[in-house]
Amino acid sequence: MNAPLSSLVIDAITQFDIARAVKLLADLKKADIADVLEQMPPQASCQLLEHLPRRAKVFAKIDPDYQAKLVHEFSRASLAEIVSEMPSDKRTDLFKRLNPQEQEALLPALAQAQREDLRRLSTYQEETAGAIMTSQYVTLKQDMTVAEAMDTIRRQAPDAETIYESYIIDENRHLIGVVSLHELVLAPLHQQIQDLMSTDVISAYVDDDQDDVAKKIAHYDLLALPVIDHEGALLGIVTYDDAMDVASEEASEDFLKVGGVEASAPILNIKEAPLFLLYRKRVFWLVILVFGSLLSGLGISHFESVIEANIVLVFFLPLLVGSGGNAGSQSSTLMVRALATGDVVMKDWFKLLSRECLVALGLGITMAIAVAILGYIRGDAMVALVLILSMIGIVLIGSIIGMSLPFILDKLGLDPASASAPLVTSICDATGVIIYLFIAAQLLSNVNV
Amino acid sequence: MNAPLSSLVIDAITQFDIARAVKLLADLKKADIADVLEQMPPQASCQLLEHLPRRAKVFAKIDPDYQAKLVHEFSRASLAEIVSEMPSDKRTDLFKRLNPQEQEALLPALAQAQREDLRRLSTYQEETAGAIMTSQYVTLKQDMTVAEAMDTIRRQAPDAETIYESYIIDENRHLIGVVSLHELVLAPLHQQIQDLMSTDVISAYVDDDQDDVAKKIAHYDLLALPVIDHEGALLGIVTYDDAMDVASEEASEDFLKVGGVEASAPILNIKEAPLFLLYRKRVFWLVILVFGSLLSGLGISHFESVIEANIVLVFFLPLLVGSGGNAGSQSSTLMVRALATGDVVMKDWFKLLSRECLVALGLGITMAIAVAILGYIRGDAMVALVLILSMIGIVLIGSIIGMSLPFILDKLGLDPASASAPLVTSICDATGVIIYLFIAAQLLSNVNV
Repeated sequence: MNAPLSSLVIDAITQFDIARAVKLLADLKKADIADVLEQMPPQASCQLLEHLPRRAKVFAKIDPDYQAKLVHEFSRASLAEIVSEMPSDKRTDLFKRLNPQEQEALLPALAQAQREDLRRLSTYQEETAGAIMTSQYVTLKQDMTVAEAMDTIRRQAPDAETIYESYIIDENRHLIGVVSLHELVLAPLHQQIQDLMSTDVISAYVDDDQDDVAKKIAHYDLLALPVIDHEGALLGIVTYDDAMDVASEEASEDFLKVGGVEASAPILNIKEAPLFLLYRKRVFWLVILVFGSLLSGLGISHFESVIEANIVLVFFLPLLVGSGGNAGSQSSTLMVRALATGDVVMKDWFKLLSRECLVALGLGITMAIAVAILGYIRGDAMVALVLILSMIGIVLIGSIIGMSLPFILDKLGLDPASASAPLVTSICDATGVIIYLFIAAQLLSNVNV
Repeated sequence: MNAPLSSLVIDAITQFDIARAVKLLADLKKADIADVLEQMPPQASCQLLEHLPRRAKVFAKIDPDYQAKLVHEFSRASLAEIVSEMPSDKRTDLFKRLNPQEQEALLPALAQAQREDLRRLSTYQEETAGAIMTSQYVTLKQDMTVAEAMDTIRRQAPDAETIYESYIIDENRHLIGVVSLHELVLAPLHQQIQDLMSTDVISAYVDDDQDDVAKKIAHYDLLALPVIDHEGALLGIVTYDDAMDVASEEASEDFLKVGGVEASAPILNIKEAPLFLLYRKRVFWLVILVFGSLLSGLGISHFESVIEANIVLVFFLPLLVGSGGNAGSQSSTLMVRALATGDVVMKDWFKLLSRECLVALGLGITMAIAVAILGYIRGDAMVALVLILSMIGIVLIGSIIGMSLPFILDKLGLDPASASAPLVTSICDATGVIIYLFIAAQLLSNVNV
């Protein structure tokens, strides 16, 4: 829907009819205008933004990578106006994407307080609470009345990302309480904030992982989570909408990892990413997995004589080996997701192992019955027996590998999501080749050789 | 952390020391108490809930499957009190999990209005906006002043899931506007709501997919999304915290599907799910994939004579075939996630195809160089040539299959996430076997046979 609209808008701009272009966008929501702009060349977007109403708010909704492309295009006055009206966390995201010259050019456009805020926020390490928090929130004092608090909130509202939670700090900026606008609206006007506030505040440390921050917000159904330093001083807040973005980003990361795509930042967008980046993020695992496959090849060459004597074995090779890989990637996927959502923790491994063995045994027997019939038709009773024993063994071992690998990676301090389907498949393949040909060698060699 | 605490609590209950058990939980947040209770046997949880302060609120935080196990254990009076205090969407979730006798037993415990509300909410189809919305929200009239609106909000607050968004309806309950508490708090008390409200309301239809509802809430950074029928009458609202749960659930669903695990409701929890359910959700794909592997087997048996004449080919079989599967599952993973997040839509297919071909060509050439050396060492120059051509062809075709399959499934009205890594691997394996052995047959037969 947005692509045709963006070409209509581009047409209008090409004909120097900015008024028509602006009119086309007039009825859209800010987030939708941002989507349209992202489809357009940066020059065209900038021309439009110079004339759009609410342009600072629209600009804040644009993806920060695209924002960075627009910075050169603006007149100095427009840039100063737009950037100083951005929410502080979004401004920091943009600032971190600029090169040093661009950063130096931007700073004089800001007021003193904003400059200091920007310098402070951009020092926090990526993927921590500090890197995603905003410094725009409402603070109250504990000896205020509700009426005074409401006045303070009204005064601070234009510069606050939310007024639905207010934070009570002492003279050292230590966080001592939280009160919601819901509670304030229902309370008598003369009540003291210290009698109304909740002192048992859920908070995060500034160096906490962003994923833990997002999980905390979801777990406690918070609108915003205050971020403190290790002395307890309030540094910022993370709002629920940023937590939703983090959760989606982390899900993408795990998802790509499980598919065998390297998922360190920047997260790949298959439509926009430069081709060489796509190549680089995929080639690593593909080459690693070649060595996994070589193990299978070595297994095969070790049993070459058995294969030559019973060429029918090759027919069933992909089937048996593939089933182990498939069962294994099912197990690892279930396990990686359960570790990510927190449903499962390390100490559950042993309990889960026995459950997994039972399920895998059931799966192995079902599959064994299916292939035994095929084996009897194409081969003989001995071939059928080889297939039955191999299939049960392969599915069982494959499932155990699949469920254990994420735990082992976690124990080694690596991301369990690196137990990707391709990695598990490669390991299970090699194991499967050896199980299959070993059993065949034992049972068939004295018959056929 | 919660497991040891839950055993301390169980110890206290076993010694009939309910007071100590309650004290152990006293400082915890509602969501954390719910977590502890879920670790305990239903009888013990019920005994505790009978004595806990805020028990209705704690109960509402418990997983609905576990809630359903507790229903039998409560005294009738407690059940009536707890269930009538639950938020209406949570009450409906519980109700839908009870068997008809349990449902009949529960209804008389509720007030008339709650019974009707429950009957209405439980009629909406699973996974739609109707199934996740709540009927507890604040409504205003457009001719109220801000002062009157604030009084109405204070009155409706105890029964509303949020007071931060209020919905303005006309005499036919048609949704005509929305106003936030933020706007009300900043507005002069005598202003009319119709002059303050936003009339361009973002809403969802009651039969919209829950995934679209969650995406809308995230896209527009909403606190709550009103749900209307096709005549425009307001039926309920979905709050942001429920949208976060839906997003997490949908991510789990896609994640499991990509791993080749059937992911229709209930979403598997590998720790808690009954073993037979785990078996049933996995066996379907494993058996389907057997037929995929049979295609590879058929390919192999078609070229049996080439293999018998050049047994060295078998050594490289897992490597070549595996690389195609790996490249294919990388492509399908990138594509499935991009379709899920909305980064990519159907009409992008052609543009993406040409990008994918270039990336795959680069990957194929890199891999070909690596295996050519091995082929020359283990075989000869001709074998190396077979490997080079096969590897480039296999990685290219594998990537094209991987990126196209999710689109094809989407076009057929199926979930693109069903293009699981195991499925893509199986299809690419079969294609890879044929490409490899066909090229080998052309180049090697006149040399070695």
